[in-house]
Amino acid sequence: MATWKNIDSLSSYKALFDLKDSVDLKKVMAGESGADRVAKYSVPMSCGLDYNFAAKQVDDKVLEGLAKLADEAELTEKYAELYNGAMINTGEKRLVLHHLARGQMGEDVIADGVNKREFYVGEQKKIAEFAGKVHAGEITNAAGEKFNTVVQIGIGGSDLGPRALYIALENWARANDTLKMEAKFISNVDPDDAAAVLKSVDVAHSLFIVVSKSGTTLETLTNEAFVKDAIEKAGLDPADHMLAVTSETSPLASNKGYLAAFFMDDYIGGRYSSSSAVGGAVLSLAFGPDVFAKILDGAAAADKLAANKDIFKNPAMLDALIGVYERNILGYDSTAVLPYSQALARFPAHLQQADMESNGKSVNRYGEPVNYQTGPVIFGEPGTNGQHSFYQLLHQGTDIIPLQFIGYKDSQIGVDLVIEGSTSQKKLCANVVAQIIAFACGKEDEDKNKYFEGGRPSSIIIGQQLNPESLGALLAHYENKIMFQGFLWNLNSFDQEGVQLGKLLAKRVLAHETDGALKALSDLFEI
Amino acid sequence: MATWKNIDSLSSYKALFDLKDSVDLKKVMAGESGADRVAKYSVPMSCGLDYNFAAKQVDDKVLEGLAKLADEAELTEKYAELYNGAMINTGEKRLVLHHLARGQMGEDVIADGVNKREFYVGEQKKIAEFAGKVHAGEITNAAGEKFNTVVQIGIGGSDLGPRALYIALENWARANDTLKMEAKFISNVDPDDAAAVLKSVDVAHSLFIVVSKSGTTLETLTNEAFVKDAIEKAGLDPADHMLAVTSETSPLASNKGYLAAFFMDDYIGGRYSSSSAVGGAVLSLAFGPDVFAKILDGAAAADKLAANKDIFKNPAMLDALIGVYERNILGYDSTAVLPYSQALARFPAHLQQADMESNGKSVNRYGEPVNYQTGPVIFGEPGTNGQHSFYQLLHQGTDIIPLQFIGYKDSQIGVDLVIEGSTSQKKLCANVVAQIIAFACGKEDEDKNKYFEGGRPSSIIIGQQLNPESLGALLAHYENKIMFQGFLWNLNSFDQEGVQLGKLLAKRVLAHETDGALKALSDLFEI
Repeated sequence: MATWKNIDSLSSYKALFDLKDSVDLKKVMAGESGADRVAKYSVPMSCGLDYNFAAKQVDDKVLEGLAKLADEAELTEKYAELYNGAMINTGEKRLVLHHLARGQMGEDVIADGVNKREFYVGEQKKIAEFAGKVHAGEITNAAGEKFNTVVQIGIGGSDLGPRALYIALENWARANDTLKMEAKFISNVDPDDAAAVLKSVDVAHSLFIVVSKSGTTLETLTNEAFVKDAIEKAGLDPADHMLAVTSETSPLASNKGYLAAFFMDDYIGGRYSSSSAVGGAVLSLAFGPDVFAKILDGAAAADKLAANKDIFKNPAMLDALIGVYERNILGYDSTAVLPYSQALARFPAHLQQADMESNGKSVNRYGEPVNYQTGPVIFGEPGTNGQHSFYQLLHQGTDIIPLQFIGYKDSQIGVDLVIEGSTSQKKLCANVVAQIIAFACGKEDEDKNKYFEGGRPSSIIIGQQLNPESLGALLAHYENKIMFQGFLWNLNSFDQEGVQLGKLLAKRVLAHETDGALKALSDLFEI
Repeated sequence: MATWKNIDSLSSYKALFDLKDSVDLKKVMAGESGADRVAKYSVPMSCGLDYNFAAKQVDDKVLEGLAKLADEAELTEKYAELYNGAMINTGEKRLVLHHLARGQMGEDVIADGVNKREFYVGEQKKIAEFAGKVHAGEITNAAGEKFNTVVQIGIGGSDLGPRALYIALENWARANDTLKMEAKFISNVDPDDAAAVLKSVDVAHSLFIVVSKSGTTLETLTNEAFVKDAIEKAGLDPADHMLAVTSETSPLASNKGYLAAFFMDDYIGGRYSSSSAVGGAVLSLAFGPDVFAKILDGAAAADKLAANKDIFKNPAMLDALIGVYERNILGYDSTAVLPYSQALARFPAHLQQADMESNGKSVNRYGEPVNYQTGPVIFGEPGTNGQHSFYQLLHQGTDIIPLQFIGYKDSQIGVDLVIEGSTSQKKLCANVVAQIIAFACGKEDEDKNKYFEGGRPSSIIIGQQLNPESLGALLAHYENKIMFQGFLWNLNSFDQEGVQLGKLLAKRVLAHETDGALKALSDLFEI
């Protein structure tokens, strides 16, 4: 059994503070030393990806210190406990089994009398069969016509992850002739969200998936009613157009008003649910079950890597350790995720949830306040767009923001043009390469307005192409990174009590049970 | 003439540090004191908006201190110099005239021998006339058919602002029967961006606007070539489908390959260019010139308010002062912008550029390093979506992140449903109200995992509806807030030297003029 301790009680952690000023990034990234680092500070990920951390503020000594920290914090032991079915989510007293949705990592996990791997695979099969029938025109609308659109109704993890993955592969799927149905998403309780999506689809040829683990999410149930109303107004029967993804114990599970229901369980948290039925239903319908299976394969390969004790064979753990070093030793408060791929436009928004909801906590897994900073602010937009936007602050602002770049050698669609001697894809790659050096090395200038201090650390994940496997690997890499950081900070990364108070107060406002400032604000909105 | 000084040399600034711990937000927002603050700490904005700062960490004493700071920093005097045509952009030696694109604030500004207000109005008229002819079917494609789509090709300020405004009003325009053409945007040099947009439009019925002030933006010229190629491959003449928005001195201006060219100038920076021809052309084509004129009217009204010396009659200045108080006195590093309106989905991305590119600087307007923090990290997503994502960290994380909420009493489309006693719009409003109190007041709980510390400051902008006027007012409010913060920090908020180094190095990579780490990284990408 691993021992769960606060990070500031670990001697390997305390030792890291002595190394704080040992790396002058500007210096070590200059000249041949920089080239050596690029070659040396690279760790293979799964599915052909590489994690290159040459431009991070580390050297062999720091890395040695981080390896000791990984050992002392028993990171891989904790991971093994997790995938073998220990009750890692102490707050909600739940197992944490999203890895099992994509592969068997260790022992069989039996919970509630069920082999959970078999349960997840069973749901995948049910979904694949259903999607196959929809695509083949065996399941149709009442008029016997094929469905061409799938609309996911969900919020948080039922929205951000699946939406980011859909957008990530939509163009790839078109280019590879595997876009079976277009997908849309309704998430916000803002009525304009549902109304606009409903206006943009042909309801008669659309399937709607209601996604809520508990079956009680206010926004989702509201939007479900909104959609049902629209289906009925179109003279159709909602039961012919609606699916549910929920837990077997939720009120939705026993509702007869669905064409089909697919199940997840309490052991997969919302922000980790893209590889469960939550992502599975919409992505299998949109891209076909084979594509979804490949996403899971990529994730499973990354999960396997994450079990390695050697930090140089475990990119997720290494990434996590460097992140904690930046947050706690170097004192950097936020992290930018910058994919040089338009297809990853919404991936940073997914990571915002995955990371900030998991590790944005002030108490450890025993409910005791911690004396160190935990999860950073995560934000990001695709490069090159960001270069023409907030990169100014990243380069010349008063705070140092660690950066995580992502880039691919090949585009997804393959339509490209040589303009002034290079393709757009080469230009894209040239830009990310240039940024890494610009941030690390800076530039001298007598005009201090044109002076770049440098010393701004970044890492990059490099791949051949963003495709289902490499996307799955990318997703799991970040999930595992976040998990390891949670272990390091001794947090429960799998509950989210911080979202409860707002829900409670909103109910009170709607019931007009308010006083003080809550009433005064409600009055301003004429609620 | 105003005197430009670093903020840490001002006595009113130093005095603020004594007030640092004077407001216990949790306490003052409780009970009747909280209700009093909601009533009292509210300042009317233009177009029916209100800026309510009841839940900010200020009291009468702090506000008095901030008023003194505004006076000592000569904020309104500097603003007056700006709109009267002083050379405020010291780095590039340029006037700063975006206010003049929406109204005459003070004296006539004559530059380059031209009355600049007349120049901007002249371009607006040219655009309005052109858009009118397109909408009336007087300007058509070669086959004599009407155009139905407009595609903006631009990056940074030529993309983020216009795109955010288009998305903000698209549903409003549909609901008000004024959506004349659908708009799309191509920005990234990633070839998949242009290829995907081109696949989604009917090229034969599309107008493409190439937007680049200098006429030399790599990404935009590349995408222009990409689009021209597609038009030609469709058997059409690009000159029948392409417009330019550029400066009169740019290479694009004299190019005969455009159906029309509209002009901006060097006195309107990219991130402030939504109210110039950069936003004007695409938005006038999409929504009609009258809608664009209303956006400008709303912005002009906000600009007028910003000239008031009294901080309680100048919401942009007050917002700026509170922001600086949070950043420099209270030491908070980032700011979340959280619109409770799905239509503002991309507004935070625009603000990211507007704010971080303007004030993410380490030297003052004279090129001297400053000894205080400047622009914060800006990020945000629409509520209620964010509630199910990163709000966990905002509520219970180890850092305090100041919040800026935006909310409206009415939806844009007007399609709504009463579900469990309330409409979706009421639920949306109830949520934002609830969040303000949850963040400010927190909640006691013996279980520390369910304990909310509170004391997390927020302000809210409240409006009746997001429509062209109130959107213009919102846009200008933030622009002016950023301007005042730049004045306070003594920065030149109107240049962006921090984006240059990356461009330079990318060119070197593409020319294969690299060594060291730059070459090693280029090799990894096989450039």
